Amino acid sequence: MNYTPATADQLLAIHANADIAGLAASERFAAAEPDMVEAIVEGIGQFASGEWAPLNRSGDEAGAILDNGTVRSPEGFAEAYRHYVEQGWNAIAGPTAFGGQGLPFTLACNVLENLGTANMAFSLLPMLSVGATEALEHHGSEAQKAKYLPKLVSGEWSGTMNLTEPQAGSDLGALRATATPIEEGEHAGKYRIAGQKIFITWGEHELAENIIHLVLARLPDAPEGSRGISLFLVPKYHVADDGTLGARNDLRCVSLEHKLGIHASPTCVMSYGDEGGCIGELVGAENRGLMAMFTMMNNARINVGSQGVQMGERATQAAVAYARDRVQSARAGSGDKTPVAIIEHPDVRRMLMRMKALTEGMRALLYHTAGQVDRGTLGDEAAQRRAEILVPLIKAWGTDAGVEVASLGIQVHGGMGFIEETGAAQLYRDARIAPIYEGTNGIQAADLVTRKLGLENGAVFAGLMDDIARDAGGEDGLVQLATTCRAIGEWMRDEASLDDRLAGSVPFCTMSAVAVAGWQLMRQLRTIDDGDFAGLADAKKATVRFFLDRIVPEAAGLRASATAGAESLYVLDSAQFAR
Amino acid sequence: MNYTPATADQLLAIHANADIAGLAASERFAAAEPDMVEAIVEGIGQFASGEWAPLNRSGDEAGAILDNGTVRSPEGFAEAYRHYVEQGWNAIAGPTAFGGQGLPFTLACNVLENLGTANMAFSLLPMLSVGATEALEHHGSEAQKAKYLPKLVSGEWSGTMNLTEPQAGSDLGALRATATPIEEGEHAGKYRIAGQKIFITWGEHELAENIIHLVLARLPDAPEGSRGISLFLVPKYHVADDGTLGARNDLRCVSLEHKLGIHASPTCVMSYGDEGGCIGELVGAENRGLMAMFTMMNNARINVGSQGVQMGERATQAAVAYARDRVQSARAGSGDKTPVAIIEHPDVRRMLMRMKALTEGMRALLYHTAGQVDRGTLGDEAAQRRAEILVPLIKAWGTDAGVEVASLGIQVHGGMGFIEETGAAQLYRDARIAPIYEGTNGIQAADLVTRKLGLENGAVFAGLMDDIARDAGGEDGLVQLATTCRAIGEWMRDEASLDDRLAGSVPFCTMSAVAVAGWQLMRQLRTIDDGDFAGLADAKKATVRFFLDRIVPEAAGLRASATAGAESLYVLDSAQFAR
Repeated sequence: MNYTPATADQLLAIHANADIAGLAASERFAAAEPDMVEAIVEGIGQFASGEWAPLNRSGDEAGAILDNGTVRSPEGFAEAYRHYVEQGWNAIAGPTAFGGQGLPFTLACNVLENLGTANMAFSLLPMLSVGATEALEHHGSEAQKAKYLPKLVSGEWSGTMNLTEPQAGSDLGALRATATPIEEGEHAGKYRIAGQKIFITWGEHELAENIIHLVLARLPDAPEGSRGISLFLVPKYHVADDGTLGARNDLRCVSLEHKLGIHASPTCVMSYGDEGGCIGELVGAENRGLMAMFTMMNNARINVGSQGVQMGERATQAAVAYARDRVQSARAGSGDKTPVAIIEHPDVRRMLMRMKALTEGMRALLYHTAGQVDRGTLGDEAAQRRAEILVPLIKAWGTDAGVEVASLGIQVHGGMGFIEETGAAQLYRDARIAPIYEGTNGIQAADLVTRKLGLENGAVFAGLMDDIARDAGGEDGLVQLATTCRAIGEWMRDEASLDDRLAGSVPFCTMSAVAVAGWQLMRQLRTIDDGDFAGLADAKKATVRFFLDRIVPEAAGLRASATAGAESLYVLDSAQFAR
Repeated sequence: MNYTPATADQLLAIHANADIAGLAASERFAAAEPDMVEAIVEGIGQFASGEWAPLNRSGDEAGAILDNGTVRSPEGFAEAYRHYVEQGWNAIAGPTAFGGQGLPFTLACNVLENLGTANMAFSLLPMLSVGATEALEHHGSEAQKAKYLPKLVSGEWSGTMNLTEPQAGSDLGALRATATPIEEGEHAGKYRIAGQKIFITWGEHELAENIIHLVLARLPDAPEGSRGISLFLVPKYHVADDGTLGARNDLRCVSLEHKLGIHASPTCVMSYGDEGGCIGELVGAENRGLMAMFTMMNNARINVGSQGVQMGERATQAAVAYARDRVQSARAGSGDKTPVAIIEHPDVRRMLMRMKALTEGMRALLYHTAGQVDRGTLGDEAAQRRAEILVPLIKAWGTDAGVEVASLGIQVHGGMGFIEETGAAQLYRDARIAPIYEGTNGIQAADLVTRKLGLENGAVFAGLMDDIARDAGGEDGLVQLATTCRAIGEWMRDEASLDDRLAGSVPFCTMSAVAVAGWQLMRQLRTIDDGDFAGLADAKKATVRFFLDRIVPEAAGLRASATAGAESLYVLDSAQFAR
């Protein structure tokens, strides 16, 4: 399955939707000048497609294997990870004080987009590490930063996030892992950690020299619920003050999940302190662990939304290649009875155009979101609040659309799509996790209709939709969708009950995301006559047309679902759902 | 993963949508009186859930294995198939002259619905056998029927359909397998078959005593393309005139596909005549093989549409059970902070109601279609033509909705849904084949907008939509959807180019299917106050409300996609789709 990095479309999105030139005008991001941006986007595309993509199918087949407490990665992963670290890709957006390049999040996003398109399961390793790095950067003490950040930023060490427990999935307030202060001895001032965590991505492996686990746990006498959770740093190997690695900490991977997809990524059940000797350090203030986790969650959610783009891009490329190659049947209605490549058949074209339009629409939304995050870092509070609206949109709609595109990719392949060797099936399996993790899409939509709609009494959301309506002049369908979203947002905020809002939250989230994506695609069109992108112009015009003419009206068709309210959902009692 | 047969809802659909009472009023189907119908629906439900369902997950894990030319089925399959045959389930709709019960197709449909809900991969064995039986029944000679039908009807022998070759997928005209007349000797009057066929479901196995392969091949000097294809009966073991089994025929399974789902079902590459000694008999007239195949395809397509119902039912039951059991988070906005079962959260309810509404809507459409087929068998030509319209609707929309419901089933399970042990993932994998086989959904939609829309100059389709609009009084959304479909159908038939029609065919097919399903759900509501079904009334009212209020408006949102035409699909040339 060939794969060509979508370098030109990524650069277009980075320019038109993230406005990288605007970012580079700041002192902080001055290094993000055009040559640097181009070098990064081209470089990571070549690296990912050259070194990580060839391991995608073999990694799926081999999977990660737990062998007496050690996780063995598929062949080739260790070397490919080492090259990734050596070439400095992990350090793109890391803090300069600790060896990072301090470039915009937008470019770190691009690194992950490329890695994930090449090999989604593998890309989770750096994705999770970046999350841990950010949490430490924002909440760690100076000593912790000095000790742990340099190797996390370089990628020599990896990081994990340990939230979930069997009884506490989306409801983190229910978690039970404990942390007991150590009063004396070698570890005085630290904590004894005990508990089991599940769904820990890349929780154990041998690709990095050390693994820094960030673990949510409760101090003795902590308040119940989410206000009693603290964050702890728990290294796989203890680290001496001079940075050298010491003894193994008392933590281990006790089993791996047998999953539908992302087989190369070990999803670990982690056990901390089975022998009473698991030592961790507090990160940030006591009982403020959840807030520290939320810091990194925003960016992680954007990167998961990016997985929709990734699976969409890979699936589209595979389907296009197959459809151009596979000769089957003459064109319907043609006098010429010679069989043609199936890409010439109208419904195959419809599927391919839909895959392309959804993928490029997701990408436009992704980089617009990343750009707003970077503006927020520069102190632009309006951009930061807008980013807060955009995060659930790219996470939820991006990942749903990613699954849809992967499924269409199978369909274009016909019977061959159902055969694992073709590779389309793996994308369909891998893509399916993204609507679930980092907060299910239902939770994203709930976040949108509760906290995010309420920002500045609704002005942030309304302002976004107003911008779209103003900017999309001439495109009546898009203007109407934005206006409808604005009105539903107002109804939700001012009139609807909380249940009514939640009942319509997912369709409303989809509608809003499509509106923003359509708008950002239009912004790409306005940029495209620029010499750098002129080569994309014809294809982009066709893609945007398809998006506006078909995907936007479909989203408008969700209006009834968004506003139907909750009452009809509660007519049945729970038992009546069963046969 | 528990599973309870949907007996009551099936009986409701068989009464309200297939009008079984009307069928039983005929002489031919007089045996289908209420007690018999109930005994069948209850009996097969118990058999399937009791004996086949427990083999679903283990069958997926073990898969079918090719071992030196022999296919080994997962443990328990042989015994479970023997019980199925012994209890007479295979013979429900078979011709009475050959040991069948001669009951309506509607009831055979119900047998397969139950078997497939229990174990989709396993159910393909009888499903394909029924197709072979029908082809022989309609096109075989009296001698062939007498020799082969009794054991096919009972299920002691199974049947296959051999259409596809590597270079000839959907385009059967391109196939190359050959049949050479044998002039003299023991097999004089028969044919020597040679060629390779792919994607042969249950093409080799040990569960039945013999396998009757129906093989499409070309006679010497046959015309090119689809007018030069003949149908041959090729037994795994030769059958003497007295019915005893003779030597092995020269045919074998050379490999099995490694598939995304339906692992227990061997998908065979079959090789005929490697040693020059594969003997077959002509079925029907020379060069008329395709027509014989089409005879059985209609019913096979309905049974594949039923797989949407099957996966939908199983996924819904699993998700409901999980959501009632899994306690997580308090109700949003409630003063009571006690965690509740997740079925109490609005968005989980929305997903479950959607799964239920889609599944029951598919089932209503399924049995309405089956009932029209049975009316056609009784000589009602209007019903037969209506069935022709309905077949692509249930096949295409049913299987697409089946995939959607299976995917929602994963989502309701959250992280657990991605773990194979839970069983939700298998449904998502298994369901994905249904939009592909028996004619991809694109081919179904093409059939709808070309041949089917043209029936009686469009009057058959328009009449269906008129019936819906007339009958759905008060439900403005449904009336409007039917009216829109009618208008699009007219535009397609009278004004649109063939390309424009094909470009909008899939969304148009979805819209039409949703209109019919919504209508048939309303018909269920009108039947339900009948004492037999009163227990379903509350749940059904809620489900129908959900379908009409949310799914119908979404389908209406496809209007733009159905009418956008082909021009925008051909702006790009094939090369411009690639990166």
